[in-house]
Amino acid sequence: MPTVTDTKKIKIPPTAFATETSRALEKPGCLLVSGDANNANVMTIGWGAIGVLWGRPVFMVAVRPSRHTYKFLEETGEFTVNVPRKGMEAAVAYCGTVSGRDADKFKEKHLTKLAGEKVKAPIIAECCVNYECKVLWKTKVDDSVMAVPDEVKKRFYPKGDLHTIYFGEIVAARADEDAAEHLP
Amino acid sequence: MPTVTDTKKIKIPPTAFATETSRALEKPGCLLVSGDANNANVMTIGWGAIGVLWGRPVFMVAVRPSRHTYKFLEETGEFTVNVPRKGMEAAVAYCGTVSGRDADKFKEKHLTKLAGEKVKAPIIAECCVNYECKVLWKTKVDDSVMAVPDEVKKRFYPKGDLHTIYFGEIVAARADEDAAEHLP
Repeated sequence: MPTVTDTKKIKIPPTAFATETSRALEKPGCLLVSGDANNANVMTIGWGAIGVLWGRPVFMVAVRPSRHTYKFLEETGEFTVNVPRKGMEAAVAYCGTVSGRDADKFKEKHLTKLAGEKVKAPIIAECCVNYECKVLWKTKVDDSVMAVPDEVKKRFYPKGDLHTIYFGEIVAARADEDAAEHLP
Repeated sequence: MPTVTDTKKIKIPPTAFATETSRALEKPGCLLVSGDANNANVMTIGWGAIGVLWGRPVFMVAVRPSRHTYKFLEETGEFTVNVPRKGMEAAVAYCGTVSGRDADKFKEKHLTKLAGEKVKAPIIAECCVNYECKVLWKTKVDDSVMAVPDEVKKRFYPKGDLHTIYFGEIVAARADEDAAEHLP
């Protein structure tokens, strides 16, 4: 994994890497961070969407109430999404299987927290694209407007634990100067 | 505007043009089509998001109940999103200001309906990227889980008419062979 000093981060337009980020979500996943410099958690996400809502750039993420991350998100209303570099696959897999209740995943996988520019939630230095988001609005996966498809319920919600969907305004976005060459 | 015979459409991965589509949403807008070959409507959208939900590629769009498109969406559960070519700005502006109740916008702006491969809603031949979507799930912009920010309410909902947010599974996606050169 590259060390922090290997790379320089530059400001990018919020949707400049939407294609690469969508691809990374599918495989190997992206890293969702919430909390603050002293107390943060990181989890792997495979779902999310980038676009525009209410005239603002948004990153939509979905988190189940059972997740350690959920509490941080609810308390802070902020998160970062970090697109891993090629070579970080093992760290991403780890962050998707181990709970922050049981381990300090940053420490275990040598992930370096860098201060966000606009949010208290840190970004991950080793990741090559970093989105800083503030929750604008949220909703819940439920049947109130339209029933969740049966197939989806059976596969993803056999025990309930329905996702909350967070629409985060992308308030800052950075990428490593050499991001294009190192995206997964 | 190019004629239909100028271009050949090829199958693309659903998120291959996510960056360009996000940029087009911001300016000049994309074209949302719903209905079928005989009775369809087209409207301009500036908001939307592309990504992954429940392991499926999704295009999220937001439509107000007052829109002519709303009825079609509710009845068919299908839509297409079409990214205009450079040069289609006037047509896109027109489709964002005139209602389908008052005019046949396809006819007025010489927009050619092409049959969808997987949905009844047509795509627009002149547009260089075309997404075909089936509504997986929908929700409503409301205060039930989290209050819509006051600033957003004042600016976008002074008369209510709250958007329904549709999560459409992208069941097919095509682009013109020369799309990369002609995107807005």
